[in-house]
Amino acid sequence: MKYYAGVDLGGTNTKIGILDENGEILIKESIKTLSEKGMETTLKRIWGTIESLMDQKKISRENIHGIGIGIPGPVINQEIVSFFANFDWEADVNISKAMEKISGVPTKLENDVNMIAIGESKFGAGKGSSSSITVALGTGVGGGIVVNSKLISGMNGAGGEIGHIKLVENGKLCGCGQKGCFEAYASATGIIREAKSRLAVNKNNLLYKSLEGNIEKLEAKDVFDCAKAGDEFSMEIVNYVGNYLGMGIGNLLNVINPEIIILSGGVALAGEILLDVVNEKLKQYAMPVTLRNLKIKLGELGNDAGIKGGIALFL
Amino acid sequence: MKYYAGVDLGGTNTKIGILDENGEILIKESIKTLSEKGMETTLKRIWGTIESLMDQKKISRENIHGIGIGIPGPVINQEIVSFFANFDWEADVNISKAMEKISGVPTKLENDVNMIAIGESKFGAGKGSSSSITVALGTGVGGGIVVNSKLISGMNGAGGEIGHIKLVENGKLCGCGQKGCFEAYASATGIIREAKSRLAVNKNNLLYKSLEGNIEKLEAKDVFDCAKAGDEFSMEIVNYVGNYLGMGIGNLLNVINPEIIILSGGVALAGEILLDVVNEKLKQYAMPVTLRNLKIKLGELGNDAGIKGGIALFL
Repeated sequence: MKYYAGVDLGGTNTKIGILDENGEILIKESIKTLSEKGMETTLKRIWGTIESLMDQKKISRENIHGIGIGIPGPVINQEIVSFFANFDWEADVNISKAMEKISGVPTKLENDVNMIAIGESKFGAGKGSSSSITVALGTGVGGGIVVNSKLISGMNGAGGEIGHIKLVENGKLCGCGQKGCFEAYASATGIIREAKSRLAVNKNNLLYKSLEGNIEKLEAKDVFDCAKAGDEFSMEIVNYVGNYLGMGIGNLLNVINPEIIILSGGVALAGEILLDVVNEKLKQYAMPVTLRNLKIKLGELGNDAGIKGGIALFL
Repeated sequence: MKYYAGVDLGGTNTKIGILDENGEILIKESIKTLSEKGMETTLKRIWGTIESLMDQKKISRENIHGIGIGIPGPVINQEIVSFFANFDWEADVNISKAMEKISGVPTKLENDVNMIAIGESKFGAGKGSSSSITVALGTGVGGGIVVNSKLISGMNGAGGEIGHIKLVENGKLCGCGQKGCFEAYASATGIIREAKSRLAVNKNNLLYKSLEGNIEKLEAKDVFDCAKAGDEFSMEIVNYVGNYLGMGIGNLLNVINPEIIILSGGVALAGEILLDVVNEKLKQYAMPVTLRNLKIKLGELGNDAGIKGGIALFL
């Protein structure tokens, strides 16, 4: 049996798992990333954890055939990181080579959201399909596109950066500095901004009551929960968000025409109440031919998607 | 030497060429399509023309290794046509098999704009690149996307239907029946609509004068010509169009991050005056990382792109 290591390098925590060639996670562990100690030290700590997990599973070094690492930043050619979104590490460095030097094991990198996408595509909601788009709806909106069973990584590692397609000319300011981005409307942050802005002028609703006067503690989940409880004010926000989610996904369908759209991340947990709006809106934004036989599903791997993506890079 | 036939099946005329394995067209001919005579008769006439061209070049049957046909409609799996945009032919038919039965030669199909895209990608403006997006700006807006040197054809053959991504929520009505499509703004038709609408309320400009009172004869080219001649009214229309062209292309860059954008079709002939606006607008619509090392070029193959795409499907 061949074994692989999957690593999900995060801003705070790094998740590390050992997988067999069927993509089953045999053992996993989460460690503090401590990126401030530098790139080399961090890679060595990750390899140390991999070694310890292997020992616990009595897997010898020569049976580990690859390490796949998800990176918070754009990755070129599965080896070079253009820049790190959160770390103070050097740009344009071949992290793959650095890890191979430390571990002696072939190492491939991908952007962290791409890693989730390829994980879901091969082992999760997209299993059995050759084309899928994973839309990760969290603090921001990320994405990963798989066509012919391969990721579209992009010339500079920016393939699948769907959060920054523009849905509104001169629209809401986005964290990226540009305006009208998908992310500014359909992320948790976008939902919270919209809800707060509406609460400023309307306090006669369940959402306001549920916050007990403390608007600052508002989370995206509160909006969905109140909408499910019948609050019209909250439902209007869900419709507003679902409209742009439909427009963004519709645009992707017209470009890629994939077999499946996989929704992951915290906002996707809203489930049916949001999916119903999106499905309705898609009729006005997507070409009918792209909706024929299209599946829209929630992600199935949760926090394990990134680790499972690690092995998917080698299959 | 291996030889191939490239066929560009059009609504009125069908262009047919014989190519060598380097993509050089040895001989070509254009015949009337006469689709009303039915699918089988048309395919036989096309094969007859291929045979006659081969005879003229003294190429024997066994040296023809493939026929590539560009189809006006969505193509699934390079063999089945979902429906024909202009012909009264049966839907969901395996045209590839039908042609192979007639000719005895392996036959592959692609959507006609995808065919132009793969032709430009392998033999034209995109030569040497592994990823490109061809934006065909004519009566409508079509597209073809090449990643890892392969077309993104889509589950139902609708991959690269970029003309129908939505740039404006509830925007201008498009010929497809939906609203706010890229095509409604950046096609020749879109330019003419916008110019006519403006001319209805402003006749004090060079564009109106150049039409000698006959607004109905307005073509997109007139707008670009007058803008080049210094007409401010026309230049404002060029800015308007270039803005949406930048927004549409910017969205594609954020999704695919290709090496090159290839502009083809009649509107692209406007050249620098339009490209300058697009390049400026891209700064506000595309993520900066996608613009690094990006090339934007005009198509180089003109009417031969479709025929050359025919062989590209076999390489």
